[in-house]
Amino acid sequence: MISKKIKEHVLGSSLIRAMFEEGKKMTELYGADDVHDFSLGNPNTPPPPVVNEIVGDILKNEKPTYVHGYMNNAGHESVRAAIAASANKRFGTNFGQNNILMTVGAAGGLNVILKTLLDPEDEVVVFAPFFGEYRAYTGNYGGNLVVVSANTETFQPNLKEFEEKLTAKTKAVIVNSPNNPTGVIYSESTIKDMAQVLGRAQEKFGTSIYLIADEPYRELVYDGDFVPYLPNYYKNTIVGYSYSKSLSLPGERIGYLVIPSEVDDYEDVLNGAIVSNRISGFVNAPSLQQLLVAKCLDVEIDVSGYNKNREALYQGLSEAGYECVKPQGAFYLFVKSPIENDVKFCEMAKKYHILIVPGAAFTCPGYVRIAYCVAYETIIAALPKFKKLIDETRQKQ
Amino acid sequence: MISKKIKEHVLGSSLIRAMFEEGKKMTELYGADDVHDFSLGNPNTPPPPVVNEIVGDILKNEKPTYVHGYMNNAGHESVRAAIAASANKRFGTNFGQNNILMTVGAAGGLNVILKTLLDPEDEVVVFAPFFGEYRAYTGNYGGNLVVVSANTETFQPNLKEFEEKLTAKTKAVIVNSPNNPTGVIYSESTIKDMAQVLGRAQEKFGTSIYLIADEPYRELVYDGDFVPYLPNYYKNTIVGYSYSKSLSLPGERIGYLVIPSEVDDYEDVLNGAIVSNRISGFVNAPSLQQLLVAKCLDVEIDVSGYNKNREALYQGLSEAGYECVKPQGAFYLFVKSPIENDVKFCEMAKKYHILIVPGAAFTCPGYVRIAYCVAYETIIAALPKFKKLIDETRQKQ
Repeated sequence: MISKKIKEHVLGSSLIRAMFEEGKKMTELYGADDVHDFSLGNPNTPPPPVVNEIVGDILKNEKPTYVHGYMNNAGHESVRAAIAASANKRFGTNFGQNNILMTVGAAGGLNVILKTLLDPEDEVVVFAPFFGEYRAYTGNYGGNLVVVSANTETFQPNLKEFEEKLTAKTKAVIVNSPNNPTGVIYSESTIKDMAQVLGRAQEKFGTSIYLIADEPYRELVYDGDFVPYLPNYYKNTIVGYSYSKSLSLPGERIGYLVIPSEVDDYEDVLNGAIVSNRISGFVNAPSLQQLLVAKCLDVEIDVSGYNKNREALYQGLSEAGYECVKPQGAFYLFVKSPIENDVKFCEMAKKYHILIVPGAAFTCPGYVRIAYCVAYETIIAALPKFKKLIDETRQKQ
Repeated sequence: MISKKIKEHVLGSSLIRAMFEEGKKMTELYGADDVHDFSLGNPNTPPPPVVNEIVGDILKNEKPTYVHGYMNNAGHESVRAAIAASANKRFGTNFGQNNILMTVGAAGGLNVILKTLLDPEDEVVVFAPFFGEYRAYTGNYGGNLVVVSANTETFQPNLKEFEEKLTAKTKAVIVNSPNNPTGVIYSESTIKDMAQVLGRAQEKFGTSIYLIADEPYRELVYDGDFVPYLPNYYKNTIVGYSYSKSLSLPGERIGYLVIPSEVDDYEDVLNGAIVSNRISGFVNAPSLQQLLVAKCLDVEIDVSGYNKNREALYQGLSEAGYECVKPQGAFYLFVKSPIENDVKFCEMAKKYHILIVPGAAFTCPGYVRIAYCVAYETIIAALPKFKKLIDETRQKQ
């Protein structure tokens, strides 16, 4: 009796979320110390301690009806102005509060902007491997997802295939760098070339193609690597940001969209996004969390814990014989499955109480994602088991 | 270039929200004391003081990764169990945690359940006057809104017309009691009759028709009035609740859906709703706010302030010659416009710096909504102006 579309979703429900539930059950059965759950991007690192202090200050010093009340559907003006100023300082942009729309996390922001842009049958291009929810988000508004296949050498986007897949119906392109699931940062030369491809396509088709930069991992980079800020390379860029990873607030659902004044039809896009935010049922991003993040803009994000995990896991797995590209950011390792069937490999891993996600969930079969936003001890305890696991696959061959 | 549907929404954007912006501008121009803004249901009453204490306790005593982290998309199990137990105590129901789904406010909850239920062209029935957003929410999923016209004598639903408008395509009916904009509580006899009408229609068409009870105002009732709990009268009832009004947390976006085990296709509806919550971009209701409301279930809701406003406003307007049904709940007065054109009347009111919303926004022209969740002084200061306003309309006739 429920919606046919939703019924299909229920049947093919998110592999990652199913893992999350399975991990909880395993933990009940075997105890937390004997379960190695690498399935979900749920930060093990707590928020910076200053987060709780700031919340305390806000509750103590601000008027409760302001802290917890309604505001403009786009968010508190002061918060949006502070975020705009912070971006200007970091990226040399020229944003004001009317370029920032506070959202219920990046997932909320992506839905808001896709609802704003898409007519049925419009196309949204993504690069494999990609976060599987993009498919659902695009489908929510009747859009068709167009997948550019993975370049498994470097996991940089395949721009030749990209150009071939752009059509008069291409409304948006989603880019996610640092990338989930690979941890790869799309290089400046990739971004420059991508901007050129997009510019040519816009000219050829006489359309506007919006580049949506999904950036929840922007702050999580290692070795001082550089993440190009896409609005500086391509005019029709809209940025979706989230504090889920940088401030370890994934359950609080707080993020924002950047809609630069330079994008085509800026007024319509902005006002459409505000309306979409309202009528989708978000209404506004959670108020207290808005006030909080505006006071955390200069908080230093400490990635040393994740970096330690990254080094240990990358080195351990490499020594055990696994193959993967060393991640430059985020907290994922995208490892080549030692057997061709990645889903089967993830099933094998469960025998060792290891939970990892098949590449199929990211439209990149033959690989598996290992989320290392876990306790260091979890990695150390799991490494010998990963070794046994690869040995088992070799015995079978 | 943006979506055609959203473009239409931008053009016909919410009257109420436009008022909100206008009120802010007027306040800047004339000062808060000289602007009488009755346009928005934004509680002037602060949250109970214990709210901030509880937040402080949670931040102090609970693990930060638990407080701010991901959880099941349906919400924290402990929170859902506590809400179920509280409902059982109050309403004699038999809910468990799997009957509760935490949502981003009632607006989020309504969108989640409509997305779960509706196929394109399915019909959703509402009773005028109704919260205008129901139209957008239904449209989000391709549904068609069917409006039962207002019974302006009592503002109880017109059940004869209701029965005539039910068809084989009716998937849901939305009921909002205590009602926005009238403040009327749908009586027990109304609900019993409505359940019979629905039962007959289900039998006639061989379908399931879900009754969605939108209940953000359940706690705001006066004179000890009784609000029937709809699952106790009609099996296929789903309840949407919000803490926006009862705890004065409208900006925090926290509420829940009740999906009783007795509803047709319960498993599909529940799992569909969890998936909808995820893929719509809500992901989950804000975590800290979930933990907060679970500890506020026994907090006494003090409606004395709203009641004082209600009495003063109702009496003052009646004495001035306005006509309206005395509200039994919520914090709205739905007043007959002294001139036929309610939109014009609201424009006239602006000259007196009075902001009220035309009944047209609730598909009930000829009336205006006055939200009295304001400072008592605002009402006292506005009453002489309301008198002048009605006098002006009389001079013109």
